[in-house]
Amino acid sequence: MTDDLRDQVHAAARRARVAADELVLATREIKDAALHEMAAALRGRAPEILEANEKDIESGKAAGLPDNILDRLRLTEARVEGVAKGLETVAGLADPVGEVLRGSILPNGLELRQIRVPMGVVGMVYEARPNVTVDAAGLALKSGNAALLRGSSTAEHSNTALVAVLRDALEKAGLPADCVQLLPCHDRASVTHLITARGLVDLVIPRGGAGLINAVVEQATVPTIETGVGNCHVYVDANADLDMAESIVLNSKTRRTSVCNAAESLLVHADVAEVFVPRITKALQNAEVTIHGDERFAQQDGVVAATDDDWDTEYLSLDIAAKVVGSLDEAVRHIARHGSGHTEAIVTSDVRAARQFTARVDAAAVFVNASTAWTDGAEFGMGAEIGISTQKLHARGPMGLSELTSSKWVAWGDGHVRPRA
Amino acid sequence: MTDDLRDQVHAAARRARVAADELVLATREIKDAALHEMAAALRGRAPEILEANEKDIESGKAAGLPDNILDRLRLTEARVEGVAKGLETVAGLADPVGEVLRGSILPNGLELRQIRVPMGVVGMVYEARPNVTVDAAGLALKSGNAALLRGSSTAEHSNTALVAVLRDALEKAGLPADCVQLLPCHDRASVTHLITARGLVDLVIPRGGAGLINAVVEQATVPTIETGVGNCHVYVDANADLDMAESIVLNSKTRRTSVCNAAESLLVHADVAEVFVPRITKALQNAEVTIHGDERFAQQDGVVAATDDDWDTEYLSLDIAAKVVGSLDEAVRHIARHGSGHTEAIVTSDVRAARQFTARVDAAAVFVNASTAWTDGAEFGMGAEIGISTQKLHARGPMGLSELTSSKWVAWGDGHVRPRA
Repeated sequence: MTDDLRDQVHAAARRARVAADELVLATREIKDAALHEMAAALRGRAPEILEANEKDIESGKAAGLPDNILDRLRLTEARVEGVAKGLETVAGLADPVGEVLRGSILPNGLELRQIRVPMGVVGMVYEARPNVTVDAAGLALKSGNAALLRGSSTAEHSNTALVAVLRDALEKAGLPADCVQLLPCHDRASVTHLITARGLVDLVIPRGGAGLINAVVEQATVPTIETGVGNCHVYVDANADLDMAESIVLNSKTRRTSVCNAAESLLVHADVAEVFVPRITKALQNAEVTIHGDERFAQQDGVVAATDDDWDTEYLSLDIAAKVVGSLDEAVRHIARHGSGHTEAIVTSDVRAARQFTARVDAAAVFVNASTAWTDGAEFGMGAEIGISTQKLHARGPMGLSELTSSKWVAWGDGHVRPRA
Repeated sequence: MTDDLRDQVHAAARRARVAADELVLATREIKDAALHEMAAALRGRAPEILEANEKDIESGKAAGLPDNILDRLRLTEARVEGVAKGLETVAGLADPVGEVLRGSILPNGLELRQIRVPMGVVGMVYEARPNVTVDAAGLALKSGNAALLRGSSTAEHSNTALVAVLRDALEKAGLPADCVQLLPCHDRASVTHLITARGLVDLVIPRGGAGLINAVVEQATVPTIETGVGNCHVYVDANADLDMAESIVLNSKTRRTSVCNAAESLLVHADVAEVFVPRITKALQNAEVTIHGDERFAQQDGVVAATDDDWDTEYLSLDIAAKVVGSLDEAVRHIARHGSGHTEAIVTSDVRAARQFTARVDAAAVFVNASTAWTDGAEFGMGAEIGISTQKLHARGPMGLSELTSSKWVAWGDGHVRPRA
């Protein structure tokens, strides 16, 4: 049974390679036409997609899934229109494939260029939301990659319907249907087979909670990119404008609590603690945030005493850990120890402090006087985002189309042979 | 005992992190001064280095190491001078750290830049040659990384002496000695501990044979970069200039046989086989190359019949696999199946064939009418090279200083909060 599953995953990966070998030759015109075809097909076949989704919703209710999960699982006319529009947006973005990254004519006349090329076969492992199926398929296609999608079993009917529509549209546009394939989703082992299919799969991107991502990274022999775990800090420096600090802390924490760029920890310099600790406590509590504070914060009414675990917790809820630090150095060390390398912010009016913080803090994004909420592919001008990488290899921060590519050195010569050393 | 070793490796990684945190703040001026200090120290203390090396050579002889390995292990005045000069070359290269990769002022006024930053703690696992110890230490330092070096036990005395000299020079230059550390080399387990020290080590680069590299990649939970396995092909197209083809094949195969960019396989289009097969057979045999040929080649005197394994063999010797193919398509498919993604070359006068080959062949370097021997960091203008990556993630092809860096998004604002969606 498990071996059957492995064979299934490997066979899908081999079909994906054949598709990828064809896709690498597709011009931007062809890929964009396919994206528009896919968008039109999603709109035209929305009824069958919504019907399939209804089955998932019913099963989900029967299985007692909580309302917030059911909400993420639910498709509506408007959400289908949203993912269709997303594909059209991707069609409008520049093609990363073929971009010349570096190039020169060498002293010997060899014409050398480093160009972007597709990765090849890209796997995605993700949780409930079926819209990720369409987003991932679109970004993979535009960047010239064949996609192996491993969604959640709770979204099986929805994903199956969506992928069937996308595959039909690909064929109609003259591209192989196997540019997009859905992998079996009932057995955890299909993830294992995907992430150990070295040589068959070029990259796997897990999107989901820390548990999924750690499991993937620990077991994988295929290259992976860690995404989306954000224990983000806001550090309020001794020289902060406290009005600004209050508004940045509130925005970072409360704009959307379920996203990886939300702040989970607040660090306040001791020099402003006397004024700022009561002030921010009140402001956060007015916004219904529960504070898990160190001794200084815990002196305030309604603040819960923090445990050691709080400094490492990604709450994704209306909770924040809060601590007074003696210096910028202590803040930097605290972040190095507890941060997840996602987004870290300092609020300060002092140029030297800002320079120190941005130079020393090791994270995908480091902000001065700005909310952690700004870390976002669309905001950064990428047009679309497949996830936010928190690793240092290959891609760091929001991943757009370029981050789904590799590169290749191409040289044209005229019989160039290399002299013996 | 094994746990002791793990503790040793982890302790070294933690010291490396402390050093890296200091090194990230070092300006180019400071790093270049340290590189010059290191070069001077190697020259000044050459006698003690050569003395240590003599011990390795004696042990190697006693252990019955073959002459070519002993030769790679041996240091001389000239070789010490060579690595010292190498450090000075690295000092002369631009600092990759701080380079702005992208940047703009967003519509809301947020000033956004993506800049290169060091990886942090970089591990190197390599085989006999002690000069790699110095090269790797120099490149890591310039790119702002603390290096954990795991060399071969056969070079233990040499590496210990070299690292002692480098560490003294670092301290003299005001940088932490722990920017360069040598790991225990007697037990294979030290490699295992290094490549599973996730969170402590940011990147491990194995340099050596396919066995070492596969073992590292299979077991690692730390990000790795595969380097240097080259089953490179030269494909002689139907429209090749056969004089050019002969010289490119000879140069690709015989310039240096022990290097990863040497050609290991020859593919000849059927249309030119009648003329070219006898001609290249003679030319290769005159250069003392043994041909492992398909049926067509095996009709020539002195050609050994190829077995299935030959198409996948990286000989690193005066041997070449040779085959006649019916079309460019067959050549591309053969390369996709048997190539290692290093360097592939086509010899052709036909623009369409050249465009097809460069677009379809998936390798770090793809050349038209040029020898595979050109794949080299110095030739590509990188100034120095830490290895040649054959993977698609992060770095592909020769890796210079830039490839030892990650990136970081830095944004400066003035109280920028993000509106709710």
